[in-house]
Amino acid sequence: MLDDAMTAALEEMSSWQQDLYEDLHRHPELSMHEERTRGIIAAQLRELGCEVHEIGGGVVGVLENGTGPAVLLRADFDGLPVQEATGLPYASERTQEDADGQAQPMMHACGHDVHTTAGLGAARLLAEHREAWQGTYLALFQPGEEIAAGARSMVEDGLVEKIPRPEVCLGQHVLTSPVAGKVAVAPGPVLSSSVSMAVTVHGAGSHGSMPHLGIDPVVLASAIVTRLQTLVAREISPSDFGVVTVGALHAGTSANIIPDRATMALNLRAYDEQILDRLVAGVQRIVRAECVAARSPREPEFELFHRFPVTDNDEQVAARVREALEDQFGAERVERMTPATASEDFSGIPDAFGVPYCYWGLGGYAEGRETAPNHSPFFAPDQQPTLRTGTEAAASAALAWLRAAR
Amino acid sequence: MLDDAMTAALEEMSSWQQDLYEDLHRHPELSMHEERTRGIIAAQLRELGCEVHEIGGGVVGVLENGTGPAVLLRADFDGLPVQEATGLPYASERTQEDADGQAQPMMHACGHDVHTTAGLGAARLLAEHREAWQGTYLALFQPGEEIAAGARSMVEDGLVEKIPRPEVCLGQHVLTSPVAGKVAVAPGPVLSSSVSMAVTVHGAGSHGSMPHLGIDPVVLASAIVTRLQTLVAREISPSDFGVVTVGALHAGTSANIIPDRATMALNLRAYDEQILDRLVAGVQRIVRAECVAARSPREPEFELFHRFPVTDNDEQVAARVREALEDQFGAERVERMTPATASEDFSGIPDAFGVPYCYWGLGGYAEGRETAPNHSPFFAPDQQPTLRTGTEAAASAALAWLRAAR
Amino acid sequence: MLDDAMTAALEEMSSWQQDLYEDLHRHPELSMHEERTRGIIAAQLRELGCEVHEIGGGVVGVLENGTGPAVLLRADFDGLPVQEATGLPYASERTQEDADGQAQPMMHACGHDVHTTAGLGAARLLAEHREAWQGTYLALFQPGEEIAAGARSMVEDGLVEKIPRPEVCLGQHVLTSPVAGKVAVAPGPVLSSSVSMAVTVHGAGSHGSMPHLGIDPVVLASAIVTRLQTLVAREISPSDFGVVTVGALHAGTSANIIPDRATMALNLRAYDEQILDRLVAGVQRIVRAECVAARSPREPEFELFHRFPVTDNDEQVAARVREALEDQFGAERVERMTPATASEDFSGIPDAFGVPYCYWGLGGYAEGRETAPNHSPFFAPDQQPTLRTGTEAAASAALAWLRAAR
Amino acid sequence: MLDDAMTAALEEMSSWQQDLYEDLHRHPELSMHEERTRGIIAAQLRELGCEVHEIGGGVVGVLENGTGPAVLLRADFDGLPVQEATGLPYASERTQEDADGQAQPMMHACGHDVHTTAGLGAARLLAEHREAWQGTYLALFQPGEEIAAGARSMVEDGLVEKIPRPEVCLGQHVLTSPVAGKVAVAPGPVLSSSVSMAVTVHGAGSHGSMPHLGIDPVVLASAIVTRLQTLVAREISPSDFGVVTVGALHAGTSANIIPDRATMALNLRAYDEQILDRLVAGVQRIVRAECVAARSPREPEFELFHRFPVTDNDEQVAARVREALEDQFGAERVERMTPATASEDFSGIPDAFGVPYCYWGLGGYAEGRETAPNHSPFFAPDQQPTLRTGTEAAASAALAWLRAAR
Repeated sequence: MLDDAMTAALEEMSSWQQDLYEDLHRHPELSMHEERTRGIIAAQLRELGCEVHEIGGGVVGVLENGTGPAVLLRADFDGLPVQEATGLPYASERTQEDADGQAQPMMHACGHDVHTTAGLGAARLLAEHREAWQGTYLALFQPGEEIAAGARSMVEDGLVEKIPRPEVCLGQHVLTSPVAGKVAVAPGPVLSSSVSMAVTVHGAGSHGSMPHLGIDPVVLASAIVTRLQTLVAREISPSDFGVVTVGALHAGTSANIIPDRATMALNLRAYDEQILDRLVAGVQRIVRAECVAARSPREPEFELFHRFPVTDNDEQVAARVREALEDQFGAERVERMTPATASEDFSGIPDAFGVPYCYWGLGGYAEGRETAPNHSPFFAPDQQPTLRTGTEAAASAALAWLRAAR
Repeated sequence: MLDDAMTAALEEMSSWQQDLYEDLHRHPELSMHEERTRGIIAAQLRELGCEVHEIGGGVVGVLENGTGPAVLLRADFDGLPVQEATGLPYASERTQEDADGQAQPMMHACGHDVHTTAGLGAARLLAEHREAWQGTYLALFQPGEEIAAGARSMVEDGLVEKIPRPEVCLGQHVLTSPVAGKVAVAPGPVLSSSVSMAVTVHGAGSHGSMPHLGIDPVVLASAIVTRLQTLVAREISPSDFGVVTVGALHAGTSANIIPDRATMALNLRAYDEQILDRLVAGVQRIVRAECVAARSPREPEFELFHRFPVTDNDEQVAARVREALEDQFGAERVERMTPATASEDFSGIPDAFGVPYCYWGLGGYAEGRETAPNHSPFFAPDQQPTLRTGTEAAASAALAWLRAAR
Repeated sequence: MLDDAMTAALEEMSSWQQDLYEDLHRHPELSMHEERTRGIIAAQLRELGCEVHEIGGGVVGVLENGTGPAVLLRADFDGLPVQEATGLPYASERTQEDADGQAQPMMHACGHDVHTTAGLGAARLLAEHREAWQGTYLALFQPGEEIAAGARSMVEDGLVEKIPRPEVCLGQHVLTSPVAGKVAVAPGPVLSSSVSMAVTVHGAGSHGSMPHLGIDPVVLASAIVTRLQTLVAREISPSDFGVVTVGALHAGTSANIIPDRATMALNLRAYDEQILDRLVAGVQRIVRAECVAARSPREPEFELFHRFPVTDNDEQVAARVREALEDQFGAERVERMTPATASEDFSGIPDAFGVPYCYWGLGGYAEGRETAPNHSPFFAPDQQPTLRTGTEAAASAALAWLRAAR
Repeated sequence: MLDDAMTAALEEMSSWQQDLYEDLHRHPELSMHEERTRGIIAAQLRELGCEVHEIGGGVVGVLENGTGPAVLLRADFDGLPVQEATGLPYASERTQEDADGQAQPMMHACGHDVHTTAGLGAARLLAEHREAWQGTYLALFQPGEEIAAGARSMVEDGLVEKIPRPEVCLGQHVLTSPVAGKVAVAPGPVLSSSVSMAVTVHGAGSHGSMPHLGIDPVVLASAIVTRLQTLVAREISPSDFGVVTVGALHAGTSANIIPDRATMALNLRAYDEQILDRLVAGVQRIVRAECVAARSPREPEFELFHRFPVTDNDEQVAARVREALEDQFGAERVERMTPATASEDFSGIPDAFGVPYCYWGLGGYAEGRETAPNHSPFFAPDQQPTLRTGTEAAASAALAWLRAAR
């Protein structure tokens, strides 16, 4: 629980947090291209007197404060290629060139700006109130969460060697439920495993008026999308969680030309790696069979990417976090987290250290307000009490270890 | 029929034609953006002593040569947004920015470079052999055929007022059949009517893991494409010609985000305007119903464009062209044209003048050679005898009127 | 052309024809089970003084009348398993057990009762007016046309040996176009080739609540039907005639049990045997591929049956029939027959004799009346002038040979 | 727990149970037409000295044995219209005429013969060992479970007035998991709610060669089945249980006739009545929209039937049953029941009395044996130890109340 001095400080820093948040929101950056954001985070951490490490595209601020356990709190900071439609005064208007030279819109459509602002707020509280705790606080800021690349990138760049080993790792995510001002925590699996697939199927180009001289990849791709629905509807148990989303489908340039290929980008999810593997195999089986049905002249191509693990909270760590959050907020503001459908690469960081972890949910929308889900162009959590609640949650959960050690 | 002097000239100008053709092929331009090509044509016509008119993006070279009828021969000169895959030494590597700032590949994938080269060749034969004919030859070069815009653009820019009124209009198109060295002509409808449609359907965006919070436009679009197949397969008579092609389908930017819309570009064709109208109505009915099935939150949007008329050869003009071509090539090289599935805006030009017309086919592939259909990335007619045959056909058909009048 | 005596006789026999027609209509019989109908025909022919042959389920009445050519006129007499919904006072209420012991409804839904009544009428005219012609008239009544079995059955039972060899074979069919009172004739292909297929696909049964423990053949069959639409819509040329109809689809007995198989009955048609073969191969390819997509545990089964040939009228015979019909009806009542989508096994009879043939259309619906197509439960041609026109057409066409020979 | 005398009796009655079971299995009867089975049950109960009530198609044997609580154990006894394919020596070869006069195959494909045999076994144990317990045992045998009709029928026929009010109701079902010899019990929802729908969609009949003159209901029905997959795959949360099964689809009689309608039988399931209602509404929305897409000439027809409630075990009753079963079998033979996908009308009986209940699972297949799910033509649980385990479970669970009261 924050002491009185910290609680007062929380109040005082709210306009600094608002400026920081609006600036981050206005300047989203695509995964693994977050130069500006990383610079701001590193500068802030240095100002707080942290020892700052730039590792694999991310930043860690180390606050050593006497003997005691080390606790790591991770926040992620990448944006998404979404065209913002919130109408907020600080909405993003930025675009960034992707690998194909295409200008991609960008938006903080998943609240990583909230996580970063709360993470920096918690670091500031702890840095400016060293009298209140003992041990080492590791303020970790991770890039590239959206593409399952950032945790791996930091680990591969030597994270484990470069910073002190924590006893526990903590993380949080702003969600549409619970309501703003509340948090939600649970033991066990709280986020799904996930993998993405790029699929290319081949037809044969022709003039739009001569379908019989070509092989139509638009019809083929549509048959595939239609048929894929049976994987969730008929092949996995209705009691099992599974998702097969075709998030993108692209074919052709002109009404009047039958193109020679179609590309799809899929995302598959499950709470069970075996079911995820069955979904992957099912997609491949259906795509290949539909290519045969269509007389496709070439084997389809599959590329798997962005494989996220299950996020599976340690029972004891989750209990201690819950206790700390109930102390801080009162039990009525701490709900039991419903396992979410989304995925995270957060667990890659505790897994690299071989330590347990807990990941909790942070409410983003006031009661009764219409919610837009994460990744929607309309995603816009309420600034307050969200930022304050996230800051309190991060700091008070960390203090459950840091103060305990005194 | 060409006289001996013309036949000798034909031989001599073949390397000029080859250079011209390869240059045009290497430098395709998108419809209604054909600045370079237009410049080359105008320069060539001026060199031949024509009076040159630049009209609505096109060019007409007028060759007056005493009293007698006027004959118009039209060639089109635009390329297509196709990524050339012919491997030819003179293949196009050009791209051009479209309205959205996207770099589009460009290719002469429909042989308009052949038409232009043959059209300039015929103009040169007639310009350099004025002793052989009498009347007025109108060498018309039209832009924007691929998007049904060029004929209209020239007419709207005053074509009828700016050049002498022809007695007849002629045109030709390189095709995969008959074989190279042959031509094909027929009375009646030889090319279909056609219209394109842009269709946008609306879903509701969501995170890829939360399909139940969104409405998936990829699944919706796929259901539409699948269902549209029934228009040709079940709704029009199996004896009637009809085509419904979805040439382009685009939705989403990422595997993991359910997008909020999908766009499709369709091309519909028939030999009968009533059937074309039924296909258009059928597409709209199916799209609207599938949007209801999918709980789409907004009405779909339809935009009709590129409406092409039927190309319907005048019986007497076709007979006279056939006779001229048989004289020139021998009857064994003149086939009966099978009505083609493609469309043309050629007839917009004779219709503006209120005069009859004939449009014939020009063989492009040597016997036994594997053919790639028009608009394919592999479309590559044999240079010879195609260019020579096209030049002979244009000149000899025109001479059927120009010499007859002497 | 009928002479005055015949024309008067035509008038007098109209109430006999009405009774005969209504009796036949009221008592349809399924293909190759036409005992009652065959008995009536044979009795009538005997009454007219014909030599009667019962051959392969059919009947031939031979009227020898001096030297001269033999002419065969064929009428078919089987009904269909359709539940009549015409509401006619003489509508069928009959059912017949099929091979599985199921009671099948029965209906003359394709007008074979018209053909039989007109065929008997023509035989009567010729039998009672022998002074008007010379030669041999062969009144052939064929069973089992609907299942492509009757012509073959008669041929296999020795038709060619049992009756005199005709010089020409004639046949007619009542259609929704032209209008009643008119006939239509054309040289060349007038009816399509056709083949039917029984397809069984295998799933794995399960409780309706446990789709993941079964393999759903209903979803599989639906995917197949949906995908088959692309054969006509995309694989054959839009200029080519082709039909793929799934006329029957059956799976399951209960809402709550996932069945272990689905059966389909398909009918495929083309004017070109090669295209028909491509459609057959396409169906097999798509069915097999969809079985793979669905993890079907067993190979699908295919059975081809009812293969009908193209009906291709001899040019000279068609010209002579047209002349005779124009003499009889006036040119304004003789149209050019549009090639019909349906099929016939009629040509099996002239082919067995190696003689040319002509098959023409007989109008069934008065101008402006709403038509129900052949095989519809509402198919109900106007009795008159249809019966009279059919009788006149049969007799006058035959007389073109019989009288000419005198 | 059974005492030594009962345990010995269990052994002795095993060949009687085998004969009874094989006789029942050989003679399945369709729901609400179980005359023979009901007769056998009533005769057996009378032989045991029960007071026998025939109520609403079912039978209750009342065994009064001094003061004490009443306990009701329910077994169901109807078969299914499935063609048995087990190859068992006592496999069913029976058929029964349904309402349409069609011969339906019949099979005990859901193990109700096991339930009945175990229920009669338990009644015999209790009847022959009255010294071991006190109170009233109600051996209830219910018809028509498969069509959600039997519980309602017994209640409507006065069940509550006709027999003593029990303190608790018990029931069991043989399943493919746990393995034979084990039982499984859990508090809370263990079986889904369910509803079935009959759907008729209308097309317009035509000859198979003239699709353009009809409206094809086979294509329409296939589009519906395909589209329905999205309800589970995209519309409900991937975390929610939901099933949409099309168990039967029927259209057409002949390859060559486009029929005028298609009928479907659907079964929908959920653990939450609101989700079930959303699935029902979703089916109706999709069917109606697809009818519009297909130009269907008439509104589709929907009939809802066989609505089953959720089976939701009382927490305290379930705990007491679990304890009794663990006493009887040892804890290693009592598993936690996984909520099953199936449905039951069992709860209609305790709900009529307003008393709590518990329903448990009975293992049917020896470890390692390949299982065929309930309702499969191959469903064949091992006779032993299944019958014995079911008998012990029924008797020992009842004794938890009957003996306790002594």
